[in-house]
Amino acid sequence: MTDLAALKKALEGLKIEDNPALVKQKSRDFFWYSPVLKRQLDAVSADLVVTPKSEAEVVHVLRTCFAMDVPVTVRGCGTGNYGQAMPLSGGIILNMAEMNRIIDIKPGRLVCEPGVILHDLDQAARADSGQEMRMHPSTAKTASIGGFIGGGSGGVGSIRWGGLRDLGNVLRLRVVTMEETPRVLELDGWDLQKVSHAYGTNGVITEIEIPLTAAYDWVDVIVGFDDFMDAARYGNTLGTHDGLLLKLVTPIAAPIPHDYFLRHRKFIPEGKSVCLVMVAPHAVESLIAYTERTAGEILFRSDTADDLKRLPPAYELAWNHTTLRGLRVDDSITYLQVLYPFPDQLALVEKVHAHFGDEVVAHLEFVRFDGNVTCFGLPIVRFTTEERLEEIMRIHEDMGCVIFNAHRYTLEEGGMKQTDEVQLAFKREADPKGLLNPGKMVAFEDPDFDFAAHKVYLFPGLEQAK
Amino acid sequence: MTDLAALKKALEGLKIEDNPALVKQKSRDFFWYSPVLKRQLDAVSADLVVTPKSEAEVVHVLRTCFAMDVPVTVRGCGTGNYGQAMPLSGGIILNMAEMNRIIDIKPGRLVCEPGVILHDLDQAARADSGQEMRMHPSTAKTASIGGFIGGGSGGVGSIRWGGLRDLGNVLRLRVVTMEETPRVLELDGWDLQKVSHAYGTNGVITEIEIPLTAAYDWVDVIVGFDDFMDAARYGNTLGTHDGLLLKLVTPIAAPIPHDYFLRHRKFIPEGKSVCLVMVAPHAVESLIAYTERTAGEILFRSDTADDLKRLPPAYELAWNHTTLRGLRVDDSITYLQVLYPFPDQLALVEKVHAHFGDEVVAHLEFVRFDGNVTCFGLPIVRFTTEERLEEIMRIHEDMGCVIFNAHRYTLEEGGMKQTDEVQLAFKREADPKGLLNPGKMVAFEDPDFDFAAHKVYLFPGLEQAK
Repeated sequence: MTDLAALKKALEGLKIEDNPALVKQKSRDFFWYSPVLKRQLDAVSADLVVTPKSEAEVVHVLRTCFAMDVPVTVRGCGTGNYGQAMPLSGGIILNMAEMNRIIDIKPGRLVCEPGVILHDLDQAARADSGQEMRMHPSTAKTASIGGFIGGGSGGVGSIRWGGLRDLGNVLRLRVVTMEETPRVLELDGWDLQKVSHAYGTNGVITEIEIPLTAAYDWVDVIVGFDDFMDAARYGNTLGTHDGLLLKLVTPIAAPIPHDYFLRHRKFIPEGKSVCLVMVAPHAVESLIAYTERTAGEILFRSDTADDLKRLPPAYELAWNHTTLRGLRVDDSITYLQVLYPFPDQLALVEKVHAHFGDEVVAHLEFVRFDGNVTCFGLPIVRFTTEERLEEIMRIHEDMGCVIFNAHRYTLEEGGMKQTDEVQLAFKREADPKGLLNPGKMVAFEDPDFDFAAHKVYLFPGLEQAK
Repeated sequence: MTDLAALKKALEGLKIEDNPALVKQKSRDFFWYSPVLKRQLDAVSADLVVTPKSEAEVVHVLRTCFAMDVPVTVRGCGTGNYGQAMPLSGGIILNMAEMNRIIDIKPGRLVCEPGVILHDLDQAARADSGQEMRMHPSTAKTASIGGFIGGGSGGVGSIRWGGLRDLGNVLRLRVVTMEETPRVLELDGWDLQKVSHAYGTNGVITEIEIPLTAAYDWVDVIVGFDDFMDAARYGNTLGTHDGLLLKLVTPIAAPIPHDYFLRHRKFIPEGKSVCLVMVAPHAVESLIAYTERTAGEILFRSDTADDLKRLPPAYELAWNHTTLRGLRVDDSITYLQVLYPFPDQLALVEKVHAHFGDEVVAHLEFVRFDGNVTCFGLPIVRFTTEERLEEIMRIHEDMGCVIFNAHRYTLEEGGMKQTDEVQLAFKREADPKGLLNPGKMVAFEDPDFDFAAHKVYLFPGLEQAK
């Protein structure tokens, strides 16, 4: 057990929160998207929240916690939904929210601290020089850049730029290690892979350099279809139109759009599947021309709509917000995260959804992935039991899909189900005691764990915490 | 025969050139890249050059020539190399060089007249708002935007944006028809296909709206390889890196780089194949990281080179400039224009070049084509006879390549070897007498011509002209 009094004394002068209700609040993310994680993680809480204001304070916290063997879990804004930032072994939540300075904006690049809200970054880059980030999650208005890089993978903009993991989509990270004397490292090039999407298990990001692109007043378009597969084909071909500057291509099957998109409901007739599109203003007319030769019908255009008041932007209907809006209407649902590999994505989508019918309702996100246009799926699942949920995922895999298991809290099970040797080696170097976000990297906790055996990894530390 | 005196009188008040040497000069393009076109077209000349200063003057010329049955061939700056703008039946060259106003620049778009030099457009957009065109040919400093849209297909920038034919890469064209009373039409969406890349056979473009993108101080990088196929693989994979903002990816086999790139020769050892890359400044370090894990070695970087004086930009070593530089060293060579279809492009490149050895030296241009990364080839051919040249192209086709025959002056033979029904229908409507650039659209001149028979189309009007 952590000696809380001694820890607080050692951290005197820093901003510390120890009110249990507030600490528990900052120990949570959107893990409740998953009924499995909800059951497993609901009791999880840190002991203290520490909110550093500078890299020097981060170094101080890590040095202190290393000496006292206190776990440290880095937190952005808690908008992840894999339990990324949940402190399975208690200890300290390192809340990066107040390290939120924007340090420099230049043509094509921006330097900032990790706690900046993504939407604020975009606003600042736009005001400075008509620029914006290449991509952001649907939670841009509440998520931080550090959390996005540490726990996200891509999102709005990935149809143009691919994912965060792709070379060039993050330029430089400054990282503090968890050692007796913490080191401050500058990582770029391939070294970025050491800590990107590592859930803060092997270093604390204190400064970020990302590329920017030209900002536009993106136009939201909702295209309606009687048949979901027409919407899927529309999105698939649209994504390959390199001359159309797009930021979002999201086919969603009925009844989701009418049932869950309450503010847009007046535009979306019952029974319609849709494709949500974000398109640059100078490409709208070309998009309309494209649409004319498809089965689609324009239901909504933000550039000609009479009244946009109280309408969220299209990206807040897409990616993880689709499920979020669904949960607000029907809290019994959950979702999956699927990759339909190129080039068979459309055939696979059709096969999967024919198999499941209304139990698994299609939601696709078209992206560039390894240079090809293909789609992720974030389908809505009518949840019954954990066993059936497992079975549904197994059937997807048997059909040829890749499942990123959104019902697991470890990096590997939520990802490619294999050890990331680069991240593992860096964790051994940068966090020798295993104090950073314990329980999230299976390969570190249990090097012999067999991912192929389809067992669930259960972090022993979590059982102790209960 | 044209009654020149009557024609000149009818056009009084316009800028007219009738000096035969100057008229012949303005009747030519870079057709001499091809020994076949050189033989066929060397004698071609118009009777007069008319240089309109406004759309009203264009209307006047077309009305007059329609009434007098005088052919009109529209010319940009004559940098094409298919004889696009050569007046096979004489008549008038309509020289658009002085309709060169930039009318409007906005975020993401620019409106101008057709005679603006591409490099000047870029300079103006950059000065106005840090923008530039999405793509340009290697002749950007001497070619016009109207000529590019009327006779080009893509080029520097196509690795990001695809080709000019792709929806969204041209936004609007204003076109004057060749009728008793010429009409002025505004075309957008799918209608753009009526006149884009139609060599001015079915209308005269008088105003252009194109998309713009963010301008960067592009960095030229030359990467060296001992084995050309390593350069080809390097380019192919590089092109799929969606997070790297690239403008040019050009693998070129030895001995071209050392033998023909005289100003860069000091950077390029004998025997080296290269890949030319243009990359945004904020992506250079990521490109270097990418290169580290390949067989490539950085030979040159414009951002760290000591002295750039007298060095042309990398794009003036690429696309059709590769052949141009070759011709300056060895005027016996010629070239091909090849498409290696996705996804078999690398295997096909390897097979083709193993077959021909030094007779056909590889030069690839990676592009996005229908949403996939693949490559065009513009290989250097050690020319011997026209028969062998034909045979070389036939072997390419038999192996699975698409040949855009750079040794033919018609749209179809230089393109997809089939009738473009949209362009043909529009020509019948907009140029009922067939006076616009006669002899270039086979489907109009000889509707029964059989492209599958592998015969060469010979425009009867050209024989008469000799």
